[in-house]
Amino acid sequence: MHRPSPQEVQQRVDALRRWMRKHSIHAFLIPTADPHGSEYLADHWKCREWITGFTGSAGTAVVTLEEAVLWTDSRYFLQAEQQLSETPFRLMREGEAGTPSMVEWMGKACAGVEEMRCCFDTRLYAHHAWMAMHRENPNLTFDFAPSDPFAEIWTDRPSLPCTPVYRQDEEYCGAASAREKMARIWNAVQAEADSIDKDHDPYDAVYLHDLAQIAWTLNLRGNDVAFNPVFTAFLVIREDSAQLFTDAAHFSPEMLHYLDEQRVELRPYEAIYERDEVRSTFLFAHGTSLPLAIKNTARIDYPGSHTLDYDLPLWIAQKNVAEICGFHRAMELDGVALVKFRRWLDERIAAGRIHKETEWSVAQKLEHYRAEAAEFLGLSFATIAGYEANGAIVHYEPTADHHSALSGSGLLLLDSGAQYTCGTTDLTRTIALGELTTEQRHVYTLVLKGHIALARAHFPEGTTGIQLDLAARYPLWQAGYDYGHGTGHGVGSHLCVHEGPQQIRKQHRPGVTDVPFRPGMVITDEPGCYVPGEFGVRIENLLLCHTDETTPFGQFMAFETLTLCPIDTAPIDLELLDPSEIAWLNDYHATVRQRLLPLLSNEADRTWLRTATLPL
Amino acid sequence: MHRPSPQEVQQRVDALRRWMRKHSIHAFLIPTADPHGSEYLADHWKCREWITGFTGSAGTAVVTLEEAVLWTDSRYFLQAEQQLSETPFRLMREGEAGTPSMVEWMGKACAGVEEMRCCFDTRLYAHHAWMAMHRENPNLTFDFAPSDPFAEIWTDRPSLPCTPVYRQDEEYCGAASAREKMARIWNAVQAEADSIDKDHDPYDAVYLHDLAQIAWTLNLRGNDVAFNPVFTAFLVIREDSAQLFTDAAHFSPEMLHYLDEQRVELRPYEAIYERDEVRSTFLFAHGTSLPLAIKNTARIDYPGSHTLDYDLPLWIAQKNVAEICGFHRAMELDGVALVKFRRWLDERIAAGRIHKETEWSVAQKLEHYRAEAAEFLGLSFATIAGYEANGAIVHYEPTADHHSALSGSGLLLLDSGAQYTCGTTDLTRTIALGELTTEQRHVYTLVLKGHIALARAHFPEGTTGIQLDLAARYPLWQAGYDYGHGTGHGVGSHLCVHEGPQQIRKQHRPGVTDVPFRPGMVITDEPGCYVPGEFGVRIENLLLCHTDETTPFGQFMAFETLTLCPIDTAPIDLELLDPSEIAWLNDYHATVRQRLLPLLSNEADRTWLRTATLPL
Repeated sequence: MHRPSPQEVQQRVDALRRWMRKHSIHAFLIPTADPHGSEYLADHWKCREWITGFTGSAGTAVVTLEEAVLWTDSRYFLQAEQQLSETPFRLMREGEAGTPSMVEWMGKACAGVEEMRCCFDTRLYAHHAWMAMHRENPNLTFDFAPSDPFAEIWTDRPSLPCTPVYRQDEEYCGAASAREKMARIWNAVQAEADSIDKDHDPYDAVYLHDLAQIAWTLNLRGNDVAFNPVFTAFLVIREDSAQLFTDAAHFSPEMLHYLDEQRVELRPYEAIYERDEVRSTFLFAHGTSLPLAIKNTARIDYPGSHTLDYDLPLWIAQKNVAEICGFHRAMELDGVALVKFRRWLDERIAAGRIHKETEWSVAQKLEHYRAEAAEFLGLSFATIAGYEANGAIVHYEPTADHHSALSGSGLLLLDSGAQYTCGTTDLTRTIALGELTTEQRHVYTLVLKGHIALARAHFPEGTTGIQLDLAARYPLWQAGYDYGHGTGHGVGSHLCVHEGPQQIRKQHRPGVTDVPFRPGMVITDEPGCYVPGEFGVRIENLLLCHTDETTPFGQFMAFETLTLCPIDTAPIDLELLDPSEIAWLNDYHATVRQRLLPLLSNEADRTWLRTATLPL
Repeated sequence: MHRPSPQEVQQRVDALRRWMRKHSIHAFLIPTADPHGSEYLADHWKCREWITGFTGSAGTAVVTLEEAVLWTDSRYFLQAEQQLSETPFRLMREGEAGTPSMVEWMGKACAGVEEMRCCFDTRLYAHHAWMAMHRENPNLTFDFAPSDPFAEIWTDRPSLPCTPVYRQDEEYCGAASAREKMARIWNAVQAEADSIDKDHDPYDAVYLHDLAQIAWTLNLRGNDVAFNPVFTAFLVIREDSAQLFTDAAHFSPEMLHYLDEQRVELRPYEAIYERDEVRSTFLFAHGTSLPLAIKNTARIDYPGSHTLDYDLPLWIAQKNVAEICGFHRAMELDGVALVKFRRWLDERIAAGRIHKETEWSVAQKLEHYRAEAAEFLGLSFATIAGYEANGAIVHYEPTADHHSALSGSGLLLLDSGAQYTCGTTDLTRTIALGELTTEQRHVYTLVLKGHIALARAHFPEGTTGIQLDLAARYPLWQAGYDYGHGTGHGVGSHLCVHEGPQQIRKQHRPGVTDVPFRPGMVITDEPGCYVPGEFGVRIENLLLCHTDETTPFGQFMAFETLTLCPIDTAPIDLELLDPSEIAWLNDYHATVRQRLLPLLSNEADRTWLRTATLPL
């Protein structure tokens, strides 16, 4: 999208205010959201970016008839200040002392304003978000917008994405057909409803709005959203049929036939918001996260209506045998690309030509090697390549215009992943480009110790993410270091690289850190440490959870490391590793060597791999 | 208390049913509780024990006009079965599949019964417990009992305890007077009420019902309850005065003068339940834990009334300098007693006379050595001395009648503590009486590794108990072992040995495992492992939390081990300890030696201590 000048931003705000006056609206909320709760937004939904000119991935704008403000978090303070400069928008630094919450601020901004409304687009707010605003200030009335102002004022607004939808590779999706998965969902909702109240009203529809859940259920994938192989749709499951609300142009004749076979009928995307008297009393989909707009038209607030939760996210999180095969295959493809990349990088260093490279050029090179695989479909997120001080900026992303040059010393943090037809990858390596400081070696080794402690954790059934987090942090904490991000997130099977529900992190989050690990769950193991202005370290592999031995103390679980890529040994301070940690690393490298060597034909690559995986 | 025969139990149940019929009551709940939420009950409050004949420390009885049932947990299944045999009471095995909850069972027992009530004594149920029952089955009406049936039917019921109340040793309680502490409470409640709503109604009383909180606030101690140096009372704090509802016979003339000085007026204990029109609209005391009976008479449910929480438990948990000095002194007294005991025990072993000793006799011997200290007041809980298989029973307690004899091999688990005028102790040692099995040595060393990892943990400010729990469990988990209890609890300063709010445990408990550690908090470090039918291991010290270094990653905290007692080195499998763990143990033993040696006059004790603390 074209970045607007401050004058253009002013014109856009003026246009919104004209629309607001026409509808007697005093304040309008513009979140960073689409109707599907997506992590990455299609351009069509980038209303907050369009009206503010701020390109960060998080933030909420509020425009009143007098003022314009934007809340964003500390990752984006600097960027937002620059991009909002000379625009009507004032930056609200979320989480800083003295910054009012949006609801607090709106309470003041609307004090004394009579018969004017605070409005928002009900497609973009889930019920629970709306309720939270209401709880924070019950006196402030948040009203549903009469229409989407951006449909009127954003004249060159990109249309909704519509890319070809394809079937997930049957080898890697498991035996269950879309029809069977929908029946399973239907039955689970029935069972859940029965367990709450045996005499519940009959219901006739189950709603899905999450794009990954829809893709998983239908065994379909698309390309509507950057990095996430999904397509824009809503799915309504009924006892004997299903309706997919989406642009029919997504589907080839062959795919239309597939939908027909699976008893899925197509409906226009926007029809989901039309009141339909057939629509049901019972609906679910992790009830509170469904957009208000659907909740309202589905008459969920009428007597006899209910929302209820069920286990769909857990089913998606627990990979089946075919999906696990897909992960294994994707790790091989990724491993081969990484070996080629690392061999190339080491040659550049050896040739004294590393200063010709930049964070951007190495990210491009890595993508080039990944793209050599026939199964490659794209990246699973924008590559983070942070050299030295940039490595300490957790969400740093080099671009063609903004990046640093490399040189023959220090650490390069490289966090990247890909979408293959067989699966999704996400790995981080921190690479020594030459000489390191004592602190760099120290911190690198502490992060590695934490990574190993989590990777080889053996724990009783029922153990959750908050309980395991310490394994990764303990060695850093002992030396006075820490990191501000979570330790692990779920990963989809040729789906989103960030997938729920389980996470490993130190803060209690209901439904996240208290989800027990189950066999088939995939989780990242990514402790890190970031010395501001100096360097960053992160070491990340994917782990697969499986059941291990049963002892008199119960069923134990363990992780298997899925990722196949040598961990740089050059920065290790061997004195800090105990023999069992060295043994773990040697075992891991032996596995990487055994699995990747047969897949490499270039002798230089093979030699590099053999050297990189030599036992310590 | 005299244990009733099955016939006597039947007579008691019959008497209760006569009372129930008189009052049109269909079911009556009898919890294990007093009106103060105490862990140990005075005999006066042992109504559940009196009517069932079951002596376990946990359980709830329900008597209907037709049936009599008792719920208790797995610790007591065997004991309850024996003690309930031939009585009208049927055992409900809490936590076993198929066992209905009390509310479920009552729903069925009361189905079809018209105009009959389920009743309970409102003095014995907190508001939140009552609400939880109501939430579980909104159709079941739990009513307030018209009076205490046991006042009528328990003819030889022990009276309320009334032991002399004394001032806490001024050297160890800190500078704040009772008046100052009450003013602090008053102001905190005012500030908390203001923070919720600046225009709140005026309030005129703050209620305390927790005996430890009352003792702490008034700098007083008593002896009404076994092991806990408290006295039975309620405290109502007003802006310029305070009323202590208790038996005046607790107080000597000198103590009455002290109360007068602190502006504390005496009221009869039972008067707390009398409706008093002066009584206030605002009350608090961790609102939901106040007994319903007080909540009702205080008119908390009237408009304008509120309950609110404030930080009293945190103030009590964060020990001041004087209290910490008291802990240090108490650890020395305990350490001296333990050294004398261990020297005596080792002599019995060396003399081949250990088989003359029993779990009970060694517990008595240990108490004897503790009692040699002038500051000794009693035990802080019943000593657990479990030899071999008995050590695997977590709540095992030898008595004069029931105990096992020792012999010259295996492990003796000894968990004990004392109340001294200067403080409270709690420590566990597992002692080799001779030859051990390979598994005993293995498990002992794993428990020790966990103990050390927690004791030397270094963690950022804000870290909570659930986050640290893994430190103690990780080595056991790796080998397929675990333990079913928490890892650490708070300890009072010459107060209750179990004190909140902070705990280290793996399950999320709001207000418990999410309380950040603060300087001055004392917590136990007590991992264990119990091989059923074979042996148990636990190693427990008290830790004091203090602030440590500030790094670029924030303020870090660390623990100081308070307990001074050698950890048995004979069972250690040295191969499993890494050099830093051995260094920790050697450092700890050096501290124990330096601190205790000057306090020991007997050369045999000094020699034993020197040997027991030799570096590994």
